[in-house]
Amino acid sequence: MLKKITIGVIGSSAGDDGEAALAEEVGARIAERGAILVCGGMGGVMEAACRGARAKGGMTIGILPGSEKGSGNRHLDIVIPTGMGYARNALVVLAADGAIAVGGMFGTLTEIAYCHIYGIPVVGLRTWSLKESRFPAGLSIFTTPAEATQAIFRKIEEEK
Amino acid sequence: MLKKITIGVIGSSAGDDGEAALAEEVGARIAERGAILVCGGMGGVMEAACRGARAKGGMTIGILPGSEKGSGNRHLDIVIPTGMGYARNALVVLAADGAIAVGGMFGTLTEIAYCHIYGIPVVGLRTWSLKESRFPAGLSIFTTPAEATQAIFRKIEEEK
Amino acid sequence: MLKKITIGVIGSSAGDDGEAALAEEVGARIAERGAILVCGGMGGVMEAACRGARAKGGMTIGILPGSEKGSGNRHLDIVIPTGMGYARNALVVLAADGAIAVGGMFGTLTEIAYCHIYGIPVVGLRTWSLKESRFPAGLSIFTTPAEATQAIFRKIEEEK
Amino acid sequence: MLKKITIGVIGSSAGDDGEAALAEEVGARIAERGAILVCGGMGGVMEAACRGARAKGGMTIGILPGSEKGSGNRHLDIVIPTGMGYARNALVVLAADGAIAVGGMFGTLTEIAYCHIYGIPVVGLRTWSLKESRFPAGLSIFTTPAEATQAIFRKIEEEK
Repeated sequence: MLKKITIGVIGSSAGDDGEAALAEEVGARIAERGAILVCGGMGGVMEAACRGARAKGGMTIGILPGSEKGSGNRHLDIVIPTGMGYARNALVVLAADGAIAVGGMFGTLTEIAYCHIYGIPVVGLRTWSLKESRFPAGLSIFTTPAEATQAIFRKIEEEK
Repeated sequence: MLKKITIGVIGSSAGDDGEAALAEEVGARIAERGAILVCGGMGGVMEAACRGARAKGGMTIGILPGSEKGSGNRHLDIVIPTGMGYARNALVVLAADGAIAVGGMFGTLTEIAYCHIYGIPVVGLRTWSLKESRFPAGLSIFTTPAEATQAIFRKIEEEK
Repeated sequence: MLKKITIGVIGSSAGDDGEAALAEEVGARIAERGAILVCGGMGGVMEAACRGARAKGGMTIGILPGSEKGSGNRHLDIVIPTGMGYARNALVVLAADGAIAVGGMFGTLTEIAYCHIYGIPVVGLRTWSLKESRFPAGLSIFTTPAEATQAIFRKIEEEK
Repeated sequence: MLKKITIGVIGSSAGDDGEAALAEEVGARIAERGAILVCGGMGGVMEAACRGARAKGGMTIGILPGSEKGSGNRHLDIVIPTGMGYARNALVVLAADGAIAVGGMFGTLTEIAYCHIYGIPVVGLRTWSLKESRFPAGLSIFTTPAEATQAIFRKIEEEK
């Protein structure tokens, strides 16, 4: 049996409405492609992405900072509490075959960086560009969920 | 939507044939009750339990010590690499609503102990009894997979 | 420069007076031998051991479950917050060349088990004996802090 | 007794000679101010910083990604193996009262980000500027070890 592809959606629990709308569409598109969505399991961008995925019949995994299963959002199928706080950010990335960052601040920045450390493809929507002299290429930034989703599946395919 | 119950199966990657047979039946019974199986994702008892669950159409989760998704056994639906070595034992327990220990040595002992720390019901099959003066009740030990599985679902039900 | 030996003292934050008295003497004896004491950094047995070590001019390290440096006991020289809860128990053991368990319940049991997993010598004072069929030797239990301390230094010496 | 200030030095195990020279001077200046140096314990920038600190009689702590005490650099007084890989980056930051980033790529980026998450002051030398629209201030970048060290101690003082 082929393993399903798993896509991480990384972003803030305090994302604004614009970010939530982007994340919801990202989640929907991940589900439409038959992939599993993994995230940090909390509110904001994470919850919006899970809601979008579930609306399309997709499966969602939340890797929580807390130790209580009930501390995640309402749209999780699989709940992995860690009790490790923000150190769990590395685990969200490790569970993904590729990741899409939506908005976000420093938590999201750790996750983008962990993607690069672990060689997991990552693209962004309205997030850190990281385009500076020590990383001239910067993060691959897209404008729409459709483009970002298409790009991450293509990158995963290329790396196989 | 009601969250599915998740049962941890804890045991050694080096379990003998007798333990593997017990674990396989435990996995099958967990799946037959419609619950999800979570384990450390490696070989031995963990692999046997996953094989048993999958044979009955159940879903399996492996929370791996390594950082590579491919390092788990062949019978995992959801793979959560941690890169944390044996410190991930705490996470296997946190993901479960109740756990069944099958055989095992010191890794299994950490997981039995984490169950007690986090208040997660746990029963045993051919494993540590822990029946000594500082814990007079000891671990609840059963003889057959049927009894152990029935007992753990009953304990979870009682704690709700 | 020769690295100093580091001894873990593992036990409960809720240890009773008898355990605290044993732990304080253990800490003092560790310091008198010029070794560093490492523990989980909290109250009870851990605090008593640190107090004993400091009274003899010894150095103490606390590897805390919380993420705040101030959450440890008052007798720590080096504070390592982890924010990982009880998953940090593996780290307390990894930092030690040998360990002495004093009293304790399930947290202590995880640490005794991690010692065996990682091949770190461990002895006990008034704690789990683990003397059962799957581990006939059981944990090496001693009656006095002097005996336990002498034994752990001898074991570390033998393994060099 | 007043707790000593602990300064994190974050940077790559593969830093070039220029970065190593900066890190060595940073380490020396931390020690001259009577502070403890904490780092990831490996080579490159971390080793250079430890060497600098020890040359001035300072104390050094290494929080290692591996589980073996011997896997750290030669200039560590206190060794904390974690066996957690890059997830340990969060712990390096949590152990520090303030941090100086020297060069580095994505590992360093996780640590800079964790500083912001946990409210730990951080300054940089020849590293990520992060000066972009979602973080207009960017990271405080300095040109010399003297300036960076002075700045981080001042920031720690201000936050007390």
